[in-house]
Order: sequence, then structure tokens, then C-alpha cells
Amino acid sequence: MNRRQFNWALVGTAGAMSFGDFARVLQPRLQVNGTRLNEHLKALSEFGKNSQGGVSRVAYSEADRQGREFVMGLMRAAKLDVSIDAGGNLIGRRAAANNNDRLPPILFGSHIDSVPEGGNYDGDVGSLGAIEVAQTLAENNLWLRHPIEVIIFQNEEGGLIGSEAVIGALTERELDLVNKSGKTVREGIKFLGGDVSKLASVKREKGSIAAYLELHIEQGGTLEAEKIDIGVVEGIVGINWWDVTIEGFANHAGTTAMNNRQDALLAAARFIEAVNRVVTSVPGRQVGTVGRIQALPGAPNVIPGKVVCSLELRDLDATKIQMLYQKIRGEADQIAKSNRVTFNFKDLNANIPAPTDPRIRAIIDSSAKELGLSTKLMPSGAGHDAQDMARIGPVGMIFIPSIGGISHSPKEFSRAKDIENGANVLLGAVMKVDKL
Amino acid sequence: MNRRQFNWALVGTAGAMSFGDFARVLQPRLQVNGTRLNEHLKALSEFGKNSQGGVSRVAYSEADRQGREFVMGLMRAAKLDVSIDAGGNLIGRRAAANNNDRLPPILFGSHIDSVPEGGNYDGDVGSLGAIEVAQTLAENNLWLRHPIEVIIFQNEEGGLIGSEAVIGALTERELDLVNKSGKTVREGIKFLGGDVSKLASVKREKGSIAAYLELHIEQGGTLEAEKIDIGVVEGIVGINWWDVTIEGFANHAGTTAMNNRQDALLAAARFIEAVNRVVTSVPGRQVGTVGRIQALPGAPNVIPGKVVCSLELRDLDATKIQMLYQKIRGEADQIAKSNRVTFNFKDLNANIPAPTDPRIRAIIDSSAKELGLSTKLMPSGAGHDAQDMARIGPVGMIFIPSIGGISHSPKEFSRAKDIENGANVLLGAVMKVDKL
Repeated sequence: MNRRQFNWALVGTAGAMSFGDFARVLQPRLQVNGTRLNEHLKALSEFGKNSQGGVSRVAYSEADRQGREFVMGLMRAAKLDVSIDAGGNLIGRRAAANNNDRLPPILFGSHIDSVPEGGNYDGDVGSLGAIEVAQTLAENNLWLRHPIEVIIFQNEEGGLIGSEAVIGALTERELDLVNKSGKTVREGIKFLGGDVSKLASVKREKGSIAAYLELHIEQGGTLEAEKIDIGVVEGIVGINWWDVTIEGFANHAGTTAMNNRQDALLAAARFIEAVNRVVTSVPGRQVGTVGRIQALPGAPNVIPGKVVCSLELRDLDATKIQMLYQKIRGEADQIAKSNRVTFNFKDLNANIPAPTDPRIRAIIDSSAKELGLSTKLMPSGAGHDAQDMARIGPVGMIFIPSIGGISHSPKEFSRAKDIENGANVLLGAVMKVDKL
Repeated sequence: MNRRQFNWALVGTAGAMSFGDFARVLQPRLQVNGTRLNEHLKALSEFGKNSQGGVSRVAYSEADRQGREFVMGLMRAAKLDVSIDAGGNLIGRRAAANNNDRLPPILFGSHIDSVPEGGNYDGDVGSLGAIEVAQTLAENNLWLRHPIEVIIFQNEEGGLIGSEAVIGALTERELDLVNKSGKTVREGIKFLGGDVSKLASVKREKGSIAAYLELHIEQGGTLEAEKIDIGVVEGIVGINWWDVTIEGFANHAGTTAMNNRQDALLAAARFIEAVNRVVTSVPGRQVGTVGRIQALPGAPNVIPGKVVCSLELRDLDATKIQMLYQKIRGEADQIAKSNRVTFNFKDLNANIPAPTDPRIRAIIDSSAKELGLSTKLMPSGAGHDAQDMARIGPVGMIFIPSIGGISHSPKEFSRAKDIENGANVLLGAVMKVDKL
């Protein structure tokens, strides 16, 4: 008796049902163990725990390595076949029914590395939620048409490194980046048990996965504010970065009359205000941020002659980002004239928007509604490994509320019930995707 | 025949004139040697010359020490008795007529230390202009009623250190400050030939000087713009400094909607704009500057949660500074409310305004006009040793135009003719002060 036959035998008359009918009948009863999932999250929070109650589990740190050991233990308890791919990602595989290898795998997962002084939910909820889904399937002796792979990507916070390896986009330059652990990506992959010399073996071609699903905390405050249970992600926003250099003229702050100044910081202040004005002048959920600023020479008694600051624009629609950017350039031109300064914009890396798959969006929405949960279609303002995976197959993302919209902070928090809800929606969605 | 008798003999009938009448008759002819003065300035510019054509002659550097050696040579050529006081200041003394010691000395001078990457006029013009005045007196065998002392203060740019020693205001904390030479003030004074253990001997009591006069470049652009030859300084402005801390909430720049942000840098931008608006909202020559800014955490993809910036206000009137400050506080309160941030102002050191002596102002003005030069009464926006000296006696300052208003830069420039004019006004003013 193979495993599937054994399972069918358990439910008695199920032998006469199609697998689809079977799943539909079972679904209302099939639920993850929310208590266990939240206990696992608490246990994981010990690895890299910081004094403010969050974690500093930066990729390639000892805390990261130990956290991954713990996660591999959970995977094994969920009857997953555990491996570390050459890119350093953790993979827990569950074969398809009848060990059928003809269909490509359904992948779902997230990451467990954190930013320095981060929280206990970003990545962890989706990672342990995915394992909980696998454990629920195992406990119920459910075998799907597709193989499933729970994937815990390494170093998400350092630039989606693990998923870049999976889609074959990891560059030599990125391998040489040093992260907050003090290690290069190259060293980090080795430290985690990967093998950079075999990176080519990790690459998955377009069409080689059935889907990638990711459960994640929203990281914004929309769901909580609107009392919505589940966010159905429309896509991951595009992100454009610029370095903006403003040049005026450094001069003596005591002897230079107000009307005789070419104050680069005053011009920068007007620019920051203009960015806010332009970004909020049109409807939509686009965001614009100036997060970094340096004024030179930077003395209290010298009028700043030069300012370098960052500009970041994010939206689901790349043309809207360009439209906003052109408006901001127009405002900068005006400021340059009236302040007698010059503006220079240096175009840095851009991430193009990554829409999720419409069928998977519908599946997530219906899975939530079947559980009596409210939903909202929304963009992901943050980057996620899902945006890389979208380049090789259909992806979907499930958001749960972040209390206060706080993220990348020890104060990051999501409620136990919302975490359980998210995992149940993931479970339902995986089972529906299996039938596509 | 003492020196004065010899001098009178030279002019023939002068024996029958009072010294005052004599000076008046002589004045139209008595002029400094402008060519020599400008040659001396060029020679001094070699000490610490930098690649941009300016100087980096930071106090206590080898260039400073060598520049001072050169200056002592010029003093000796001007028949001055040269000494280095315990505070490290250079003093060139010329006795009074008949070696009369009953009247206190008239002091005049400036400094030859520069900021890093500074120019060839700030301090140098007044220092070599003072020596040129002394040399002119010597060449004409003129002995005044008062002794004269050309004083070249050490480390003006590092906080008026030399003049603080002279007025007995140099603190232990200041003696331990390390300047850009790498030396503490204490080490620097020794390096220049002073003696910190004898600082008490340097202190001059209130009333112990007849006056202190200083010729200086304007460092601003007013005289050039208005085509005025000579600035008659009304006083040295008061300077108040604050550290301003703005606290919002650091959050994810992608997931935090625009209307849900507590962006400390956006609030800082509005504050910088408000400082400019308040300072320019009332008539007068007050200035206000935000020269230093730091945004934390300072990443392009994180909304700044905290900003620390400087605020500097300068005016001749301390009550006006307070009035502007209160208006700025009011604006900050509004910004705090509308941006959901907090502002904290930390009061740092303040220099109180130092008015010049009205009689000396009139003397400078008339000395300039007798030479056919146009004048303008104006504040000094920059700090000068004269503000320390004002605490022990009457002071006056003479400004000459700074081309383009540029200062503390290799691009600092004053015309040879303006330098000569300034020295001639100083000569005339010293002779008039002598008669007060």
C-alpha cells in the first residue's frame, strides 16, 4: 500500500471520490494547529534574541545558523525531506501522491534571517506557517498531486540573496557583498552549508515550479486600521532609487547675508517637502521617501555648500513611478533656480514591479472567505523573495495584520489568531493550487 | 636729542606746534606703503600654501610656527620690540614718545592662523596691515603719546584662544581641546613659545589698554555689492547655538503609507524652511543657519525616526536673537503637531554681542572720509578677537571688501587697493585714538 492508498483507506468511502472531491469535503475540518505554530514562533525567537524583545538574527550569524538548525528539526517533525541547496536555502520536500514526479513542485515558505535589531514576525511567520501547513498535511496523511517544497530562503534582508540564487540571478558582485555578520555572501553561503561552486545546480528554469506562495506580515498598518483579516497581495511594488546631489556654495554663516546665500541644505529641505507634496498629490498607494541625508561641510557655523540625499519611489506601476519622478524633477528645477543651486540625480538600481498571479489571488481570496475571514487586495510595499520567484512561475502572497504597522523593529507584532488565520489560508490555498 | 626731538627738527618749524597740530598737518601726507604691504601678504601666503592657492595654516602647525617667524622678522624690520607672551601671542611694541610709560598702550593687530583649506586674507590683512602701520610710523620717526603694541593673537580660528588668554578667560577645558594640528591648546601654546604655567601674567585688566583696533576683511559680500570702500563695524554679533533633536518613528519605507508616517526628516525639512522664513520675516541683518544635520537610521529604505540638527542665530542685539528663537520655537510646535513628532532644543554656548566704542567708530569713519573713502556702518557677523578685547577696553574694527563675499576658502580674495586703503584707515585711526 502506498501512502496515498493508506490515506484513502482511512477515510473509508473516499476511495470512490476524485481527489478534488475528497479535498473539498475534508477542507472545512482541515486546520493548522495554531497553538503549536505560535509556540514554534516563540521558540525560534530565542535564536538571536535581543534586549528589546526582538531578534538580531542577521544572515550568516551564529544565531542564523542555529535558528536554521531549529527550523530543520521542525521540518523533520513535519515529515519533510530536508536538504540545503547549493545556494544555502533550506528545503523541506514532501513527495506527491504515489511518488508521482510528473508535476512540478508547489513551493511555499519565507525566510528566518532578520535585520539588525529586528522583530519576531517578519519572515518567521511565513517560514513556520509553511512548516505548519506541511505538518498538518502529514498528520492528516494527505498527499497532493504535486510535490510540495517548503523553502526557507537565506539572507532575504540582505537583498533576496537566496531567491536570486534559485532564479540564477545572483551576481559575482553580490557574492562579494559583506553583510552585518561581517561575512561576504560567498562566505555566508559556505557557512550555512551551501556550495558556491555549484550555484548553477540551484537554478530553476521558468515553468519548473507549479507556484510559489508566501505568507507574510503586512509590515504596514492598513489591515489593522481597516480591521481586515487577510491581505491578498496584488503584487510587489517596483522600487527606484536615486542619489540626489545638491550643490550650492559653502560660506561663513555669520558674514553671509540671508539674501546672498546658496544654501544647499535649505534647497534640500524644499526638495524633501516637494517629494512629499508630489507623492501625495495623486490618488493611490505609491510612497516616496528621503531616508538618508548628508550636508557638507556639516558645521553649525558654515552654510552647507553640498547635500547628498537619497530618493526612493515605490509603486505597483512602473509608469506611475516615472510620472512621479518627472514631477519631482520639475520641482527640483524650480528649487534650483530660486535657490541658486544645482541638482544632480544619479539613477541607482531599480526593482521592477512583480504582479502576483490573478488565479492565485482569487484562490487566496476564496480560501480566506471560506474560513469566514475578511480580505483586501493590496500591494506589497516591501520587497520579498516572491518577486524573484515571479520570474519563474506564478506567485501569490498572503498578508496578516502588523499591529501599529511596525516592522524591522523589536516592536513588530502580529496577533496569535492572525498568524493562525494566515497559516490556514496558506493551507487552503496550497490545496486549491494543487488542483489547478 | 631724543627721538621725538629729532623728528621735530626734521620738519623744521614743527617745534612750535602741539603734537596734535603736528599730526593733523602731517596726516594728508602720511600713508602706508601699499605695495610693500601686499608683497608681505604674498610672502606670508607661502607658509602653509595649499594646492588651491589658499593656505592651511592651522594654529600650532609647523606652517603656523614658520609663518610667525616670518611675521616676527617683519616686526623687527618695523622697529618693534618683539616678544611672545605666556599665552603664545606675538607682541611688537613701540614705546611712547619720550619713553613715557604713564599712558596705557594702544593695541592693534589680528591673527595669522587659518582654518583648514582657508584663504590668504582672513587675519593676514589685519596682521600685516598693523605691522605696516608701525613701520610707517617708524620710517617717519613718529612717536605717539601712547605706547603701541601690534598684537598677533594665536589660534583665533580655534575659538579666539589668544585673546581669551589676554583677558584671562581661557579655561582648563579649552586648554585640553585638540585642534586640527593634532595638538591640545596647552601643547600648542608651548609649541609657539608660550608658557601655560605663567598664563596669569598675560592677563590684562579692564582699563589697562587705551584701545584695541583691528583691520579685517568683511568676509561677507555687502561692501563689494554696494561698492563701499570701508566698513565701520558697529559691533560683533552675538551667536547662539542649539542642538535640535526631532523624534518621529522609524519605519519601513515601502509598507508605511504616506499618511501613516512620523517622518523626522520631513519634519526637519519643514523646520529648516521655518528657520529661514522667521529669520527673513523681520528687517535687519540677523542671520540664521542650519549647518549640520544627521538623520537616523539613515537608510534610503527606512523612514527617518530621528534627526539631530544645529541651529545658529546671530545678531548685534541679544533680545532680537531671543525674539527670533521664540518665533522658531512656535513654528516647531506647529510642525510637531502636524507631523506627529517631538522637538527638543538643547541650548549650547552663546557669545553675547560685543558693541564697538562709539568714539572709535567715529574716528574710523572720519579717517576713511579724510582719505576720500566711502563708509558703511555694519555689524561683524563673524567672531573676532576684538569681541574679547571689548571686555577690557574700547575697541574698533575696520572692514575692507571681500570679493564675492567668500571667506574660509582658498577663493577668499581682497583687492590690493582695498588692503592699502584699510591700512591707511588703521594708521589714521591709531593716530586719532592717540589723541583721545
